[in-house]
Amino acid sequence: MAICCFPSPLKPITPATPLTNLKPKRPGILRCNFSLPTITTTEPEPVFTSVSCFAPATVANLGPGFDFLGCAVDGLGDFVSLRVDPSVHPGELSISNISGPKKLSKNPLYNCAGIAAIATMKMLNIRSVGLSLSLEKGLPLGSGLGSSAASAAAAAVAVNELFGRKLEVKDLVLAGLESEAKVSGYHADNIAPAIMGGFVLIRSYDPLELMSLQFPVEKDLIFVLVSPDFEAPTKKMRAALPAEIGMPHHVWNCSQAGAFVASVLKGDLVGLGKALSSDKIVEPKRAPLIPGMEGVKKAALEAGAFGCTISGAGPTAVAVVDSEERGVEIGERMVETFWKEGNLNAVASVKRLDRAGARLVGSVPR
Amino acid sequence: MAICCFPSPLKPITPATPLTNLKPKRPGILRCNFSLPTITTTEPEPVFTSVSCFAPATVANLGPGFDFLGCAVDGLGDFVSLRVDPSVHPGELSISNISGPKKLSKNPLYNCAGIAAIATMKMLNIRSVGLSLSLEKGLPLGSGLGSSAASAAAAAVAVNELFGRKLEVKDLVLAGLESEAKVSGYHADNIAPAIMGGFVLIRSYDPLELMSLQFPVEKDLIFVLVSPDFEAPTKKMRAALPAEIGMPHHVWNCSQAGAFVASVLKGDLVGLGKALSSDKIVEPKRAPLIPGMEGVKKAALEAGAFGCTISGAGPTAVAVVDSEERGVEIGERMVETFWKEGNLNAVASVKRLDRAGARLVGSVPR
Repeated sequence: MAICCFPSPLKPITPATPLTNLKPKRPGILRCNFSLPTITTTEPEPVFTSVSCFAPATVANLGPGFDFLGCAVDGLGDFVSLRVDPSVHPGELSISNISGPKKLSKNPLYNCAGIAAIATMKMLNIRSVGLSLSLEKGLPLGSGLGSSAASAAAAAVAVNELFGRKLEVKDLVLAGLESEAKVSGYHADNIAPAIMGGFVLIRSYDPLELMSLQFPVEKDLIFVLVSPDFEAPTKKMRAALPAEIGMPHHVWNCSQAGAFVASVLKGDLVGLGKALSSDKIVEPKRAPLIPGMEGVKKAALEAGAFGCTISGAGPTAVAVVDSEERGVEIGERMVETFWKEGNLNAVASVKRLDRAGARLVGSVPR
Repeated sequence: MAICCFPSPLKPITPATPLTNLKPKRPGILRCNFSLPTITTTEPEPVFTSVSCFAPATVANLGPGFDFLGCAVDGLGDFVSLRVDPSVHPGELSISNISGPKKLSKNPLYNCAGIAAIATMKMLNIRSVGLSLSLEKGLPLGSGLGSSAASAAAAAVAVNELFGRKLEVKDLVLAGLESEAKVSGYHADNIAPAIMGGFVLIRSYDPLELMSLQFPVEKDLIFVLVSPDFEAPTKKMRAALPAEIGMPHHVWNCSQAGAFVASVLKGDLVGLGKALSSDKIVEPKRAPLIPGMEGVKKAALEAGAFGCTISGAGPTAVAVVDSEERGVEIGERMVETFWKEGNLNAVASVKRLDRAGARLVGSVPR
């Protein structure tokens, strides 16, 4: 378990600053102009000509872990390729290509990967090298699987790898948070596990403190992720949250959060699933807004899942189990139920816990 | 970590049923007449003529663990001696002696130890043997150190030991809960650690589920318990609790509860202390009702305590640290501050975590 403790230079922004308020002076190519601290005193040189990095999907909230627990899921995620580009002005970043949803902007200040990459360059004090970034989206937008965080995590790690890993994990999370704050609100429950892997508990924001919770390596943890063809309106999902919570429900959710953490550390999958299913505050308000969700949870549990809830703010449903084979069966039941009870097409993925987080997957030496 | 899972035969009672409503037909000696299940099918015979048992003090709430976390403290507690007494009607219990506060009743139905002992006899189906119980109070009443739970725990364990340990820990907690429900409300965060030792998380009441959280055996955990000469009015302490909690404070306390659990399991004393100090919901409302408490917490932290909060509903203040020597110094500062800022005399105890819970300390074979 790692505990990272350092002062946050960022002021929490809730809700996220609208992107339309950001007016870059030179659209397309931008200097590092954030208020993040410079971590390296001397400017490092690139150790690669280019790198390619992957960052995984993440499941935030995790039932009673609303707004402070998240985990990473292997085999789903985004790729960022980054190269030294003499045609880009030194100290600047250009986005050369995005494969995936057409609606993503190539303007670095309008793009999750761009914002995180620039924040990381700022921390590294990069002034003499221009970079080109290419983003390959593997995650759908607005699915509740941490799509923006995956792009940001891959980009921050790519910049750090290109310049010889000068930054620590905590710095990379801060750089990623810079992006999350502008896109979906100042919350670290996606970006932290996307970078760190495994389960992460956000202990505080001011200063930012993160606890990595290690699920025992000898045990399997399988996620069944079922994404319906439905747009969960973020505003509506947030508006559904109660402003005030009665003491009994508060105590209940707190105890379940404690039980969740204990189950993760112990590798108790039954206990983990039970805690995942136990939220009495957020899920009961949000589930009715996703057609079929309540039936899907019931179907997952009846089919043998240890637990099931909404991933992030939805619409993806997440269930946990201990074998891929059973995960496939459970996924089929969940897809069927989204169709029967919600009249929605859905796709299922059966994936393992990602323990590594965002990482280098390819490089070209100088 | 043990997980006990079984249906509770008891209906939660909040607030506690007033003792004045209980009208025993034969005051002083009472049959087992609770609705607890009989666990043993055949009536066991006593394996001792008499036994003596100890049960430790407990610290409930533990900051963000309000109403669902508690732990046991060694070296402070109550003793119960129990003997086969042919002069007591078979199947009945008499309280022969109580050393300590004069206001405790010898009527078993009005006494924590009596209620728990009778509940345990009922579970064991004891009909052929009469018992005499003697209670030695080591804990002051109303101190926030689980005085009633210690008496109940020692009594339940004494009955079970006398008849050859036929019941499991879970049954003993249920018997103890029978007592707590009548005396201070249906809550297990004192009785469960008093019986089980260590840290216990109350996961649910219906069915009752308890999680034992093991603090690593190779690490020391020292409690500084400072009890001022002040009666914390239970009604006032409960009335001070907010009925509704804003979402930010809910998320904060949930995350701290998770961090507390992780710190216990990892043996991270700094993290544990920090979480202990972090409650934003209950402590801020209750501390001002105990003269000097806010200053005492500050003094404890300044003197090097890792964390400090109110024990149970108070008035005892509890701080944690890693050495007895430093614990003594911290205790002195806390006592001074109770006097300076609260005009209260106070006494300090420096104790270790009790890992064993209620236990046999003496016996006379048949």
